[in-house]
Amino acid sequence: MQTPLASKFDHWIRQDFRDMNTALEELYFAQENRDNLEGVGDGIKQQLVTEGRDYIAQLLREGNTDEGFDHGFELLGNVGFYMAACRRHGITDPARETRSPLREASALAMQLGASLGAVPRFASSHLETHNRAVNGVYKTFTALNDERIFIDYNTRGVFGYIRTAEALLHSLPLGVSHPVTLDLLRVARAALEDVFASNQELFTALDMQRFFFCIRPYYKPHRVGLREYRGANAGDFAGINVIDLLLGLCRADDPYYSQLLVDKFLFMRPEDQLLLRDCMRRKSLLNSFLEEAEEHAGEDWFQTNVSAFLEVCEAHGRVAVQHHELLVEKYIVQPASDAGLEDKADLSASGPPLPVLLKGLKTLCDLRSAAPRDDIPSRYRDIGRLKACVHR
Amino acid sequence: MQTPLASKFDHWIRQDFRDMNTALEELYFAQENRDNLEGVGDGIKQQLVTEGRDYIAQLLREGNTDEGFDHGFELLGNVGFYMAACRRHGITDPARETRSPLREASALAMQLGASLGAVPRFASSHLETHNRAVNGVYKTFTALNDERIFIDYNTRGVFGYIRTAEALLHSLPLGVSHPVTLDLLRVARAALEDVFASNQELFTALDMQRFFFCIRPYYKPHRVGLREYRGANAGDFAGINVIDLLLGLCRADDPYYSQLLVDKFLFMRPEDQLLLRDCMRRKSLLNSFLEEAEEHAGEDWFQTNVSAFLEVCEAHGRVAVQHHELLVEKYIVQPASDAGLEDKADLSASGPPLPVLLKGLKTLCDLRSAAPRDDIPSRYRDIGRLKACVHR
Amino acid sequence: MQTPLASKFDHWIRQDFRDMNTALEELYFAQENRDNLEGVGDGIKQQLVTEGRDYIAQLLREGNTDEGFDHGFELLGNVGFYMAACRRHGITDPARETRSPLREASALAMQLGASLGAVPRFASSHLETHNRAVNGVYKTFTALNDERIFIDYNTRGVFGYIRTAEALLHSLPLGVSHPVTLDLLRVARAALEDVFASNQELFTALDMQRFFFCIRPYYKPHRVGLREYRGANAGDFAGINVIDLLLGLCRADDPYYSQLLVDKFLFMRPEDQLLLRDCMRRKSLLNSFLEEAEEHAGEDWFQTNVSAFLEVCEAHGRVAVQHHELLVEKYIVQPASDAGLEDKADLSASGPPLPVLLKGLKTLCDLRSAAPRDDIPSRYRDIGRLKACVHR
Amino acid sequence: MQTPLASKFDHWIRQDFRDMNTALEELYFAQENRDNLEGVGDGIKQQLVTEGRDYIAQLLREGNTDEGFDHGFELLGNVGFYMAACRRHGITDPARETRSPLREASALAMQLGASLGAVPRFASSHLETHNRAVNGVYKTFTALNDERIFIDYNTRGVFGYIRTAEALLHSLPLGVSHPVTLDLLRVARAALEDVFASNQELFTALDMQRFFFCIRPYYKPHRVGLREYRGANAGDFAGINVIDLLLGLCRADDPYYSQLLVDKFLFMRPEDQLLLRDCMRRKSLLNSFLEEAEEHAGEDWFQTNVSAFLEVCEAHGRVAVQHHELLVEKYIVQPASDAGLEDKADLSASGPPLPVLLKGLKTLCDLRSAAPRDDIPSRYRDIGRLKACVHR
Ligand code: HEM
Ligand code: HEM
Repeated sequence: MQTPLASKFDHWIRQDFRDMNTALEELYFAQENRDNLEGVGDGIKQQLVTEGRDYIAQLLREGNTDEGFDHGFELLGNVGFYMAACRRHGITDPARETRSPLREASALAMQLGASLGAVPRFASSHLETHNRAVNGVYKTFTALNDERIFIDYNTRGVFGYIRTAEALLHSLPLGVSHPVTLDLLRVARAALEDVFASNQELFTALDMQRFFFCIRPYYKPHRVGLREYRGANAGDFAGINVIDLLLGLCRADDPYYSQLLVDKFLFMRPEDQLLLRDCMRRKSLLNSFLEEAEEHAGEDWFQTNVSAFLEVCEAHGRVAVQHHELLVEKYIVQPASDAGLEDKADLSASGPPLPVLLKGLKTLCDLRSAAPRDDIPSRYRDIGRLKACVHR
Repeated sequence: MQTPLASKFDHWIRQDFRDMNTALEELYFAQENRDNLEGVGDGIKQQLVTEGRDYIAQLLREGNTDEGFDHGFELLGNVGFYMAACRRHGITDPARETRSPLREASALAMQLGASLGAVPRFASSHLETHNRAVNGVYKTFTALNDERIFIDYNTRGVFGYIRTAEALLHSLPLGVSHPVTLDLLRVARAALEDVFASNQELFTALDMQRFFFCIRPYYKPHRVGLREYRGANAGDFAGINVIDLLLGLCRADDPYYSQLLVDKFLFMRPEDQLLLRDCMRRKSLLNSFLEEAEEHAGEDWFQTNVSAFLEVCEAHGRVAVQHHELLVEKYIVQPASDAGLEDKADLSASGPPLPVLLKGLKTLCDLRSAAPRDDIPSRYRDIGRLKACVHR
Repeated sequence: MQTPLASKFDHWIRQDFRDMNTALEELYFAQENRDNLEGVGDGIKQQLVTEGRDYIAQLLREGNTDEGFDHGFELLGNVGFYMAACRRHGITDPARETRSPLREASALAMQLGASLGAVPRFASSHLETHNRAVNGVYKTFTALNDERIFIDYNTRGVFGYIRTAEALLHSLPLGVSHPVTLDLLRVARAALEDVFASNQELFTALDMQRFFFCIRPYYKPHRVGLREYRGANAGDFAGINVIDLLLGLCRADDPYYSQLLVDKFLFMRPEDQLLLRDCMRRKSLLNSFLEEAEEHAGEDWFQTNVSAFLEVCEAHGRVAVQHHELLVEKYIVQPASDAGLEDKADLSASGPPLPVLLKGLKTLCDLRSAAPRDDIPSRYRDIGRLKACVHR
Repeated sequence: MQTPLASKFDHWIRQDFRDMNTALEELYFAQENRDNLEGVGDGIKQQLVTEGRDYIAQLLREGNTDEGFDHGFELLGNVGFYMAACRRHGITDPARETRSPLREASALAMQLGASLGAVPRFASSHLETHNRAVNGVYKTFTALNDERIFIDYNTRGVFGYIRTAEALLHSLPLGVSHPVTLDLLRVARAALEDVFASNQELFTALDMQRFFFCIRPYYKPHRVGLREYRGANAGDFAGINVIDLLLGLCRADDPYYSQLLVDKFLFMRPEDQLLLRDCMRRKSLLNSFLEEAEEHAGEDWFQTNVSAFLEVCEAHGRVAVQHHELLVEKYIVQPASDAGLEDKADLSASGPPLPVLLKGLKTLCDLRSAAPRDDIPSRYRDIGRLKACVHR
């Protein structure tokens, strides 16, 4: 049971807060320079800050009333929405301050984050997999149609990845040679194809300008208390890394990839943290197939199962390329370049300047698609060895 | 890492043990009265008992070498296979003894079961979801083709149910009105249709006589130490009950159903126990839709999502009926009646006489298919109310 | 937050229910044959059954309202108190019935037990370590002073054992040769001495007749749903077995002891189950010292630490002997014999006839005190080897 | 089972590594300016770096071989020892670099940290509660007697705090009015008095100069991969905060304190994280007593239990003052001032300049001793109210 106060705050986030954000977005967007915040809608901004603070101060006084993980996590999301909107409207700025000026919100967020085992800010699960709808409408920052489109398809994509991960996880106890592993690999591939299709629809439906100017800015890094936290991104769930690791395309002993994992853990929900941790100690399917290849490449099971496995890898790579070449390109690179903002920091959730960000994303994309690169630990040679074993 | 001794025992289970069981089955099956064990293959039986005991006594002396849950669970399965085979060949009989005569095996099984949090016998996960294949072959009692068919399709069915459960679980945080809940309900229905199709293939492929006389008997109840444990059955995983509870067709406050859950918990793996426990405190989709129906039945989201939900229920009921009317009927009821064994106890894994068993299964089937019965808490009226809300 | 209904039921258990039990006890106790229940206080018995059922039926209808583990566990205790009192007053009797006639109570208890991961009855933690006091008074069946004495000292004894177990657990990562392990062993011994002292006070304070006739009978086995569950006893917490196992005096590969563990697990709280499971895979201190003795017996650390260890063992044995020779003797054996009830079943929580029970308790006592017996795996020879290493 | 390679590395850490550090310390300490590292023992430094890297590179290649949490955690400690020593000897410096130049060590530490759920560096549990001794000797950086003294007494202090925390935790389910809560509060006080006595011995035994110049520097912040992590300190275990929170002297909704918790979580072992999280949702004893005071201050139980509670608070405050005024003063403030290093950053584990650090520690000390300050949420008024209730 949410407390009545937590309910009222939730209601505010779903209504007045959303309306104020929407009004501000329309004002910003109507300007020549859509990137400008200064002097725009100051009254609304003030109201947003004050109303939110009032709720939060009361919630802090009410105390941690032990309402269970789910309600605590939902409340953390709501406080986080508020702090992220303040950052988006320039009310706070981590580059300007050494400590968040939102004292009460920081206090509540830190208390909740610490007690839940998560970062003290909203995470992408608040937007996607754990975004409770009320009478058909889930939480968003604004009432803009494009935000809804963005979240809808992100959520679908995330669940597709999760389905893939679940199928791969189920195959572990069976081993690569089990007849039912074949079924599970097919399920995995189909789920990745669902992600591909859903991403394609997103690409068609989402407006580039709206996304770049009115949605993306809510995902910027900001401070909570003394520390700065990077923004939420659609990858903050275990499933995607479970796929990387179980397929074997990325490896936990690669410092690039382990840095990524280290930085990501607290952005996931605790159950996801445990899941991903467990995966880090498993042998990947790729390595298992390679081990079996020496003696058993000729067996029927090897031929069928390795083919199905290679198709999963191929599908995973295809979605990674699609993400990088279609989505990132259209919704970040192009509009940034159009608006001459390439060199601004924090264009994206993680904050680094665009070229640095893109280089990292490209590495990830190349690992996932087993691209022929030797400056990173791409498995293209190993994938090649398996392909060479397939008769047909 | 398995210890070398545990590996050798695993190897024995996969080879000599399996061959001895197969030889015994062929001897039994060649008889006029296939049900007779007496005086058949006594040398083989003796060898099986002795060889197994030797391994187990050594393993017991080796001590619990802390090899991790997975290896402990695998070893428990192997000891359990041995004890179940002894029961099947009449070497032990719970009706005859007050304590299992297999002292070493009982000691090892109890130590493992207690330390793992599971019953001290083999469970169905040892046969299905956690049955590691080696070079394409997973563990079975015999080398009979029909045992392989039975396990293959059971495993597929179980994974289909698990996929269904996963999709329903993912929908909980979103709520029944979320647009992506629609996608998840469709995934759930498709997975149930996979179960239906796989069961149908099983029905076609599996030989009735072979199943009844040569496979089923390995799943009988037997003692470990002082206590008798019912046999493994294909339902000993959380997914099926997760579906029952989340759909709302079965309820944890129904004493029939909670007795079933109480009796089942320790037959599941610990992670499944936790999952199912968590489900027991959730509001079912059926109840959520009923709550929303009063105010929101006319909304678009209600119409689409409730229709998808009803299709999931319908599919779940269809598989339950198929299980009861096709599989149980063909592989238990008919051959039992043909052989005049209807009144023998322990025809099935749980041990009660056939009519009692069938009555219980029928209740379950009727709950799942929301059959119009008022002597059990069937939800047929509530399902009817939802159906009445759908415009098309 | 307890629901209002759960609060009212709790209040009833703490007041009217307690008063009715007390009144019945006074009636029974005033008889020549204190063991007789027949025809005594029938009106009170009826009232107790009916009032309890009314609350429980309402609670069952209210549904599982997801109030968190703690509240669920407290409610289970209250339902369990009710069922145990019905058993004590002869309203139910597992020897007479095949299913508990308390349908609603069984349904609620099974739902709660299954969802919490515990037996569906009250456990000793409900009486001792988790018995919440309200204005200085915790829950008891009766208002008899002797029940209060019994629970007070049981609780103190249990916490003393728990402190011992905690100290031993902390020593595991340090190893037997660490200087601070010495401190921890001293803490362990002091805590066992606390148990000894507290048991001695119990022995002085508790009235034999009152205990035997008015308190003990609430701890008898009874059915919930179809199954019979043994009663609660003061040993249903992990600590005592943690001590046994870590000291090395009892072993999990001994079928006598593993049977005891298997039968006990679900009578413990889930966190205790996990703790005990974890202990089952550890190397005992005894075995660690034996390993070190070969090479390092002459080292200073060995001399100090092994001496402290032997004193812990000695203290553990002394308390075991005290329990057996003082407490069990005075409060069970003597009054049973005085009343000519030696051969009645279920004198104690676990139900077997007195001689069987005593034989089991004697074995346990001899294992704990490393008595010189070779028909059980007593470690007396190994303890002797260590003693022989000590110079002083 | 550790892998052979992990064992060899462990052996190196316990021998050659320790000897090299010792040799370097003697060289530094022999200088006029003991703070100087430049140009001292360059050959030894080089050897230390190279030998360590060789082991680590091999371990990285060996891969995560799934040896269980305990072994992974021990290996992380060893890699962390190496990285901390490199930092201490000026081989790395977070102020100089943007990424740790220890590539292999960072990779291994990040992989382990991520998979274990802890910071990718050595934590104080590696030195104290989980520092396995081999033949009487646990791991240290150097063979200096003062390091042994420091760790010995830190470990004793930590276990004293843990005992206190355990006793307080056990009292929660009983409530403040339970008769056995009195026993538990007495145990808590006695354990705090053990900490006091042990700290006093430390104060007498430990050499100021040696601590300041030869031991402290191993606890400095350093980078792992891209991120900088503060050093280990004796407070990186849950117990101390459990005491703060359960007594009620510190509160999780105080932004100062929640910031401290947020920053500390990943420095604790996962089981400690869970324990502390659970505490954050509990009602403190102070608040419970305050609630009861209104109606029940006159009751016997209140008088005895609140007195015992106040003595626990008093003891906790006394140890806090001792830590601040004796230990921090003698071993940090004085030598820093003597050596004119007050304004250097990273004198301590957390890195800030001395005045900032001291201000924070003073706040903590004042909260713990309920000092009469109104600029921080000290509970001195509430403690005063309780004191006023006590008759004697
Ligand atoms: C009047 C006092 C007591 C009597 C008559 C008594 C009697 C018994 C009996 C008969 C059992 C066996 C129950 C069964 O299996 O049916 C038992 C078990 C046990 N009792 Fe007591 N007990 C008393 C007090 C205590 C106290 C104060 C403690 C200290 C904590 C204690 C610790 C245990 C433990 C640990 C067991 C479980 C078996 C074992 O592991 O030893 N008992 N007791
Ligand atoms: C030479 C002896 C000691 C010195 C110089 C010392 C100094 C310090 C310093 C400077 C800090 C702050 C670290 C930072 O944040 O940078 C600290 C933290 C802490 N120390 Fe000590 N300490 C000593 C011994 C002990 C002992 C024996 C204990 C007892 C267990 C202890 C318990 C703590 C705790 C719990 C903290 C964490 C902060 C807090 O919660 O208070 N210290 N110590």
